[in-house]
Amino acid sequence: MIQVQLIKDLKQNINATKKSGKSIGFVPTMGYLHEGHMSLVEQARKENDFVVMSIFVNPAQFGPNEDLDRYPRDLERDTKMAVEAGVDLLFFPQVNEMYPQDGGISIRAGAQADVLCGASRPGHFDGVLKVVTKLFHLVEPTKVYFGQKDAQQLAIIETLVRDYNFPLEVKRVSTVREEDGLAKSSRNVFLSEKERAEAPIIQQAIQLGMDDFKINQDSEKAKQVTIRHIENGTSGKIDYVELLSYPDLTNNVSNNTSVILAVAVFFEKARLIDNLILNNEENK
Amino acid sequence: MIQVQLIKDLKQNINATKKSGKSIGFVPTMGYLHEGHMSLVEQARKENDFVVMSIFVNPAQFGPNEDLDRYPRDLERDTKMAVEAGVDLLFFPQVNEMYPQDGGISIRAGAQADVLCGASRPGHFDGVLKVVTKLFHLVEPTKVYFGQKDAQQLAIIETLVRDYNFPLEVKRVSTVREEDGLAKSSRNVFLSEKERAEAPIIQQAIQLGMDDFKINQDSEKAKQVTIRHIENGTSGKIDYVELLSYPDLTNNVSNNTSVILAVAVFFEKARLIDNLILNNEENK
Repeated sequence: MIQVQLIKDLKQNINATKKSGKSIGFVPTMGYLHEGHMSLVEQARKENDFVVMSIFVNPAQFGPNEDLDRYPRDLERDTKMAVEAGVDLLFFPQVNEMYPQDGGISIRAGAQADVLCGASRPGHFDGVLKVVTKLFHLVEPTKVYFGQKDAQQLAIIETLVRDYNFPLEVKRVSTVREEDGLAKSSRNVFLSEKERAEAPIIQQAIQLGMDDFKINQDSEKAKQVTIRHIENGTSGKIDYVELLSYPDLTNNVSNNTSVILAVAVFFEKARLIDNLILNNEENK
Repeated sequence: MIQVQLIKDLKQNINATKKSGKSIGFVPTMGYLHEGHMSLVEQARKENDFVVMSIFVNPAQFGPNEDLDRYPRDLERDTKMAVEAGVDLLFFPQVNEMYPQDGGISIRAGAQADVLCGASRPGHFDGVLKVVTKLFHLVEPTKVYFGQKDAQQLAIIETLVRDYNFPLEVKRVSTVREEDGLAKSSRNVFLSEKERAEAPIIQQAIQLGMDDFKINQDSEKAKQVTIRHIENGTSGKIDYVELLSYPDLTNNVSNNTSVILAVAVFFEKARLIDNLILNNEENK
């Protein structure tokens, strides 16, 4: 596996790879890799000749009250995992390499960023847009891989790529789940035994809500189905349950739009998120 | 010359061109071509295997009080000129093709856009950034060509490319001038005989101001030299005379920065602009 920290070394490798006609699959990460990342690499590996992973804890997407310095890092372990997963090139730049200067041009997310998890993280998705734009230009990938678990991030990046004609394809990778259906997350270890037993109900509740929506096309009713199921079956406190158009994330849903049903639930020591996306073709 | 209106036809040509290993030179325009555009094509022709020109009157860069509908258009004449200049592919999309939907993500110019001509055109450069980002992604050029005459546009695009790592090179093309030094412009025909005779003084005044700056490194003094020379030699009314860092366009200039001296002058029926850029290496 090639390991580079400098943009000039990355570009040298990318240029050579493109010149040889190889397709490039790209998995951008903030490191501290887990099974979710590995599923992205696995799919990238299948669909491309050359797989690039980046590890960069992006300061631009952390708010002033969010602790950038405490974000977990373990480059040695990450490097081993990347090698085992079959990554061809690992790019792990320093902050100065990515942001040597700032001429003041910004990319701003629109109303998409004001709902779901974005509602409590002003500016977060602007920082995501900045770093993915830079990384897409640096890596020049054929396909980029993002997990559906972070559905709002996925929606905003799909919109960026669509509206700004990036010459690449965004691949949506299904959420990796435990056998009982709970979405895998590094936060699951913070659940008590009782909470862990209840947690799969979140996914069931989302499925029930979406089934209801398919029949009745009534987003309020569908959300109530989901909310009731979570409240009856878990001790968690609902942060939000939203049914929105996808990827625009507005309340304007009809049977011609793709829709997302997204949920966040607080447990004692962990906040869990999960979602289901119903594509346009299925929503008829 | 290949002529395409649809993005899918453009991409087919671009993909084939890139696959064959050819370099792509790109000249984005709003049409109504003149000698300035031709000098961009001429340089692109020399430095690339394949030359793409776009003609698109971009609504996003017109303000609510600026008359988009009255912007001059002559596609037939433009097409002939593009053929003669040696353009390989002409892309002239409809507005719907470029902006079929809007997910709300915007690119915003920073303080660079608040000075010079941008001061009186709020939002103009945001629209420029939007369209050039889209066009760069569509054409995937090796090199893009912009005239130095529109120095603020050039500065902002150079900053976009630098700060967002676009995989292309911005080529700055010198202003085309009349024999007496007046910058060529379609607006020069609106000058009276007396004004036309005075107008070359603008360029002389800029040169004198810059010579003074090289010696004294005092931007206020240099601007005064330029202002006095224009006021003494012409009947024009000065809109602005600014000496700024380049490409950041701030007042923070030192002998380590590139600088621009830019001028706009109102005559009876025409507003003329001109400028001179002093590169870092020369400013010592």
